[in-house]
Amino acid sequence: MELFTYHRSSAAYRVRIALNHKGIKYTAVPVNLLKAEHRGEDYLRISPQGLVPALRLDDRRVLTQSNAILEWLEENYPEPALLPRDSYDRGVVRSWANIVACDIHPIDNSRVLKYLTGELGVNDEQKQIWYHHWIKLGFDVLEQQILATPYCFGEQISMADVYLIPQVYNALRFNLDMTSYPKIKSVSENCHQLDAFFQAAPENQPDSPT
Amino acid sequence: MELFTYHRSSAAYRVRIALNHKGIKYTAVPVNLLKAEHRGEDYLRISPQGLVPALRLDDRRVLTQSNAILEWLEENYPEPALLPRDSYDRGVVRSWANIVACDIHPIDNSRVLKYLTGELGVNDEQKQIWYHHWIKLGFDVLEQQILATPYCFGEQISMADVYLIPQVYNALRFNLDMTSYPKIKSVSENCHQLDAFFQAAPENQPDSPT
Repeated sequence: MELFTYHRSSAAYRVRIALNHKGIKYTAVPVNLLKAEHRGEDYLRISPQGLVPALRLDDRRVLTQSNAILEWLEENYPEPALLPRDSYDRGVVRSWANIVACDIHPIDNSRVLKYLTGELGVNDEQKQIWYHHWIKLGFDVLEQQILATPYCFGEQISMADVYLIPQVYNALRFNLDMTSYPKIKSVSENCHQLDAFFQAAPENQPDSPT
Repeated sequence: MELFTYHRSSAAYRVRIALNHKGIKYTAVPVNLLKAEHRGEDYLRISPQGLVPALRLDDRRVLTQSNAILEWLEENYPEPALLPRDSYDRGVVRSWANIVACDIHPIDNSRVLKYLTGELGVNDEQKQIWYHHWIKLGFDVLEQQILATPYCFGEQISMADVYLIPQVYNALRFNLDMTSYPKIKSVSENCHQLDAFFQAAPENQPDSPT
């Protein structure tokens, strides 16, 4: 499999974690967002939306959208599982993942920030406040709900961790004060001890600046 | 089951379609967003995030986040299915659904628009341009990819339709010119012929203003 990825893309980061966790070998194909390679003809043939990640399967078919890719991985490589066995528990884990996937990440995405500072002339301070605002709304709820013993849903790594860790990376990059989030901090530290997460981190990617 | 819903919430609209399509009886419990009932103590006990929809199951446990609810419904009420049988096809349908769920809807959500016009002092014209911008980016790709024969993925209703139709409703509400989207328009018209979609529409809800 080939993963079209960018080291700092948190959607790609999610998929890297899942691939590593499930022990699936893949080739990383970096797409340099800063050089707008994702808007180039070659990449648009792979992903018409021009977003990373995209996963090219062994039969050359392509899947896009991290949520869709992650569910596909779970269906086709069920062990080790990233969703609990019980259906209600799966719903809970998916709801936590979706707080990140739908209520934080899309609003703080680089293309949205670019629109804010470009078209709307928002200054750096306002941009930072915007960024923190949406993370905090989501983290406030996650902090209250996750078990953090030692991972979001307990003893097993789940989709909730797969989504949360890249979001924490972004939060730290934008200097969010994590004092109010001891459980999230603890989950993050625990996950970073694991090879699957460590190897998936932006700083450990082939396209990470040295 | 009880669905905590608001007639114009497109995330609640998705769940209403799925419940109807699967023939699941439920009680609609309206949460008036204009009166900020979603921020009230009573509702925050049900959904700590203070967002609609929330689904209270017969055993009184609650699920939040429309994506998580929809996957739970699919797992527990598999027929009629909203995801194709083939795993790759499921990935494709989920990726289309996620274009709406992650790349359009969250950015055009009412709380984001409120932040734009409030904190950032964005005017009505800029707000409208913002709104159209994110829908167009998503619709441009969906128009290119969906089959529309007669529904997004062919002859069977799928999650892609469940997500697309509420987004089209929003697009029309904000006067988006649909001329460039003949396939999306056709899917929307075909879906509206179906009772499951018709009954789920905002104007047919108990909390819809008469």
